[in-house]
Amino acid sequence: MTPTSIDTPAQAVALKSRHLLGIAGLEADEITLILDTAVAMKEIGGRAIKKVPTLRGRTVVNLFFEPSTRTRTSFEIAEKRLSADTLSIATATSSVTKGESLLDTVRNIEAMSPDMIVMRHSSSGTPHLLARMCRSTIINAGDGMHEHPTQALLDAFTIREHKGRLAGLKIAIVGDLLHSRVLRSNVLLLNTMGAEVWACGPATLLPSNLDRFGVHATTSVDEAVDGADVVMMLRIQHERMHGHYIPSVREYFTLFGLTPERIRRAASDAIVMHPGPMNRGVEIDSAVADGPYSVILEQVSNGIAVRMAVLYLLSGRDANHTIEEH
Amino acid sequence: MTPTSIDTPAQAVALKSRHLLGIAGLEADEITLILDTAVAMKEIGGRAIKKVPTLRGRTVVNLFFEPSTRTRTSFEIAEKRLSADTLSIATATSSVTKGESLLDTVRNIEAMSPDMIVMRHSSSGTPHLLARMCRSTIINAGDGMHEHPTQALLDAFTIREHKGRLAGLKIAIVGDLLHSRVLRSNVLLLNTMGAEVWACGPATLLPSNLDRFGVHATTSVDEAVDGADVVMMLRIQHERMHGHYIPSVREYFTLFGLTPERIRRAASDAIVMHPGPMNRGVEIDSAVADGPYSVILEQVSNGIAVRMAVLYLLSGRDANHTIEEH
Amino acid sequence: MTPTSIDTPAQAVALKSRHLLGIAGLEADEITLILDTAVAMKEIGGRAIKKVPTLRGRTVVNLFFEPSTRTRTSFEIAEKRLSADTLSIATATSSVTKGESLLDTVRNIEAMSPDMIVMRHSSSGTPHLLARMCRSTIINAGDGMHEHPTQALLDAFTIREHKGRLAGLKIAIVGDLLHSRVLRSNVLLLNTMGAEVWACGPATLLPSNLDRFGVHATTSVDEAVDGADVVMMLRIQHERMHGHYIPSVREYFTLFGLTPERIRRAASDAIVMHPGPMNRGVEIDSAVADGPYSVILEQVSNGIAVRMAVLYLLSGRDANHTIEEH
Repeated sequence: MTPTSIDTPAQAVALKSRHLLGIAGLEADEITLILDTAVAMKEIGGRAIKKVPTLRGRTVVNLFFEPSTRTRTSFEIAEKRLSADTLSIATATSSVTKGESLLDTVRNIEAMSPDMIVMRHSSSGTPHLLARMCRSTIINAGDGMHEHPTQALLDAFTIREHKGRLAGLKIAIVGDLLHSRVLRSNVLLLNTMGAEVWACGPATLLPSNLDRFGVHATTSVDEAVDGADVVMMLRIQHERMHGHYIPSVREYFTLFGLTPERIRRAASDAIVMHPGPMNRGVEIDSAVADGPYSVILEQVSNGIAVRMAVLYLLSGRDANHTIEEH
Repeated sequence: MTPTSIDTPAQAVALKSRHLLGIAGLEADEITLILDTAVAMKEIGGRAIKKVPTLRGRTVVNLFFEPSTRTRTSFEIAEKRLSADTLSIATATSSVTKGESLLDTVRNIEAMSPDMIVMRHSSSGTPHLLARMCRSTIINAGDGMHEHPTQALLDAFTIREHKGRLAGLKIAIVGDLLHSRVLRSNVLLLNTMGAEVWACGPATLLPSNLDRFGVHATTSVDEAVDGADVVMMLRIQHERMHGHYIPSVREYFTLFGLTPERIRRAASDAIVMHPGPMNRGVEIDSAVADGPYSVILEQVSNGIAVRMAVLYLLSGRDANHTIEEH
Repeated sequence: MTPTSIDTPAQAVALKSRHLLGIAGLEADEITLILDTAVAMKEIGGRAIKKVPTLRGRTVVNLFFEPSTRTRTSFEIAEKRLSADTLSIATATSSVTKGESLLDTVRNIEAMSPDMIVMRHSSSGTPHLLARMCRSTIINAGDGMHEHPTQALLDAFTIREHKGRLAGLKIAIVGDLLHSRVLRSNVLLLNTMGAEVWACGPATLLPSNLDRFGVHATTSVDEAVDGADVVMMLRIQHERMHGHYIPSVREYFTLFGLTPERIRRAASDAIVMHPGPMNRGVEIDSAVADGPYSVILEQVSNGIAVRMAVLYLLSGRDANHTIEEH
């Protein structure tokens, strides 16, 4: 793959919105711009001094109304590599517990003039609501069961790094399809980029409208994985396991867990992905998670490069001046 | 208003104490110095790169024994704009839970040689006690029902920005007067600066000694607000609502809530303030909170400038060298 | 004492491991190298600008699976004085609560390419396990009842500062010997450096194998303290007090508490140490804790210098280029 470098004509493309609320609304050339920019950002992560002055003097607030060590940590590291001042606020200590409305909380933070707000919330659509009411740039770090755009972008980056492209690939996504913002953002992105998406899960966790999104829905893992270039496993949340969605962990693993046997049905150079945190022995066998197909830890590494790219592109800085060592 | 600029003769004034424990003890020229310095600091907040090297290499510890996202965040942003290294410690994770005494906890932090300790504590007088026992500069970020000096300073800054002065203004403060450190610090500051303070609240929440502080006390909102230049609403804490202080939220709003009708009794150019977090529909109507009179979000913005000024003045740095861009 | 300065031939010594998992395995010249380097680091802490660019662009993750304000704060300040980017993760908000395995959590953090991970865990041996599985440099900030190497190093630094040496000193360690990682690390270090270690505690808290480590074990405080150059008190944890280990707090203090009377049996220039947090009136009398013998707050200050030295030496930077002011 020869990614469009950061100083080629492709640079003429810019993100249309000053927010990143979801993959919905992003066009193919915008997605490509983010992925190409992330290539340059990944190079920074390989240096001894992993730091550029791009966002020096800028303040980024990480506003997490839902706990997430891994996403928050990834954003914080990305922000620090760009030399931004970062501030993380978790709900447990926020004014929300004092009965203040969400909008008042965000307006107050905004009154402190942060340059960007990275936000996670358990209610779908919260970042969109706030983007309409606030002046700050808002980056959605996961909203309810709706979208998790930087996850889909880092997944795409990882696939492209291995396969050189997204278009034409068969990508199987297996797990809890009903409650997954990761699925939704991935489907939107992969469709836009021309991949062929298969979604597989128990009938109780299969949304009825998947075909509307051009997704091949199935309850057979074997069918989904067959010849796939990429197998992406979704996390089964513990709270689903004790309900009417899944009879038992053992049965789920038997029917849907990714085992060495199952992955052999995929393409010989298939890669296995998982957004984490993994439930080993539930949705994925340890032999697969730690096996040669797995790119799960690469996803984590790439998450930083992709988030740096998003922060950078939304900051409105001129690329040619800022990605140098300092 | 032409504020005394940072390099005029007024610069000859300096803060007498190396701590900011309360408004009590501050003289008028010290308050004016802080407000004038905050004007320069606010200008920094308007730059693209909102950062000056003033406190580079200095460590500020934010020691919060009581949760407060908004005050802690404001201090942290102020510290980072001045390039200080910041460290925030919340009680939940502190040695206090291991049975160590407060004084030992603070002495231990002090032994790590921070330059300043910003402290919030639920017991009145705690920062004063520690200031006597410790060598570090201590800034009171709210102690029990006693003082909250930076809140009063940011309120004064906001009033002065709108009215050009503090002396001679009629300022109505409405709400829970009994438990409010915001009231106490504001009364002390506004008295010192020559404003006329009216305090209004339910009889159950009206301290008996307000007149001793030269405050006009009343249980009639209409009387307090009548002709006022500034109407400052205080938060009614939820824990007061279910006790014997207030019969019901609805009755409180009926009798004391700031409505569009009530604010019309104030001066035609009156401003409405609230230290936050607001209880909409309890002490203030949303139409007022979000209305043209409201400067509530400006208070939040100004809080950063005022806290930068306090940190700067207490750090003992020479003004003429340090407030330049870096 | 003339410590080997940082640019003398002793500089030829380097740490053999790229981790600091414990005192076990460190040789005398490695311990001396750390202590000598800490002398230079302490000098930085005495400057007005307490900051050097040594670890600029390096990321250090503080991963605390057990709360510890004092150790975490000390590491964070040390990291910031060396200009590292720091990130602190506490268990309460970590993926561990989502059922992810410890190893997956650490591998994920590692995939984000931190340069070093400072780790505290309630299970003995956790940092050793992770050091075998991960590529990052791991610094043990306390593991279960096993080791707490930076505590022993800061204790040694403090003793050496007062006594000029470690070899030949009589050092009495008094308290809960059974559950103490501080004891273990100190015994290993002091033995390696040629000190004579006496350990004293209730019979119920006395490990049976102390003599195997060359330690003089006794249940008599008077015998342990007699002529001692250093008396190091260990914290009695509250959870031990209500069990079968200690009959009552009062009886513990009567039998083992360090009182002014008891400390008079020590050498006339003896120093009193405590790793904190102290239980005043349980293991130590306030008159001793705050008295002229006490170096307890110096231990806290020295902790930063020693941790800076460890971070610096493990970072693999060339000393002669980096310990200059910036």
